[in-house]
Amino acid sequence: MIPGVGERTAQRMIYFFLEKDKGYISDLSLALQDLKEKIGFCEKCFNYSVGDLCDICSDSRRDSSIICVVSKPQDIIKIEESGEYQGLYHCLCGVISPIQGIGPDDIKLRQLMSRLDGNVKEIILALNSDYEGESTAFYIGRIISKHKVSVTRLATGLPIGSIIEYIDPNTLKNALKDRRTMF
Amino acid sequence: MIPGVGERTAQRMIYFFLEKDKGYISDLSLALQDLKEKIGFCEKCFNYSVGDLCDICSDSRRDSSIICVVSKPQDIIKIEESGEYQGLYHCLCGVISPIQGIGPDDIKLRQLMSRLDGNVKEIILALNSDYEGESTAFYIGRIISKHKVSVTRLATGLPIGSIIEYIDPNTLKNALKDRRTMF
Repeated sequence: MIPGVGERTAQRMIYFFLEKDKGYISDLSLALQDLKEKIGFCEKCFNYSVGDLCDICSDSRRDSSIICVVSKPQDIIKIEESGEYQGLYHCLCGVISPIQGIGPDDIKLRQLMSRLDGNVKEIILALNSDYEGESTAFYIGRIISKHKVSVTRLATGLPIGSIIEYIDPNTLKNALKDRRTMF
Repeated sequence: MIPGVGERTAQRMIYFFLEKDKGYISDLSLALQDLKEKIGFCEKCFNYSVGDLCDICSDSRRDSSIICVVSKPQDIIKIEESGEYQGLYHCLCGVISPIQGIGPDDIKLRQLMSRLDGNVKEIILALNSDYEGESTAFYIGRIISKHKVSVTRLATGLPIGSIIEYIDPNTLKNALKDRRTMF
């Protein structure tokens, strides 16, 4: 099943393809094959990449003293969209999940550790704030903290634009605990 | 219109009332009148209260050196539910909104200022993170900061349990900017 494509959408797509000529269909098929053949993983950060190194890793203007760790390449796009971050990334390609049998050796953790040369000053753990993301962050953070690197994580609290009345108690609890000095 | 009661629900309620006897209806009417007559505002914090002082203000175990400022009494309930907070409250009964013609004198700001005796050490501004909440927090925070009181605000960031892929860019930007040291 392709995500976002239910039975009705699939039917509409099929009628759409049937109306198109053979050329269109073979172009689309080739494009799909190209996608798998030409796009691989960046050998440094494991983001999707056309060449050996992705656009971010090969951009010398990026701050190489800071690495933002994510679980999926999609999260890199989200963080880039926020426009706040100028450092490099590292994609774990998964999170530790004992229930699903995914251990520390099944994600790109060893590869992250090998990037911790003296140049890296900070590792930001930008993992989901769900159970698996939190426990992966804690596991990795503890290991990294043995090196001379500052380990940080994304702030938790009220989303921008949110109304207190509709916030879940745990988020509110955290927002109170982590309250910030204004003046 | 009563919130949460649409046409269909209203109809169902009317049939329900019609099936009840007169005693039930007069009890309900009296209870409604009581609600307005017996419940007023706490003269200290402007939370809803049966007596002159609300349960929280009259509880000597609460930490009176810290006041959490909210815009509505409902927010007090939410924060109490989170179980994180042991201090007192102050309900502004509104937020500053130039568009709606609500200025600083139309909310319980003067009353908040009069509570800033030497005993109060911290004011937490627990206002919504929408436009009016933010600007009210900034306005009040600046005024309070002239007194010898620490002014804090709820943390903004990822809600607990959230998935980065679905977070809006502004929240993500803030979560990165306000990132916290783990190790």
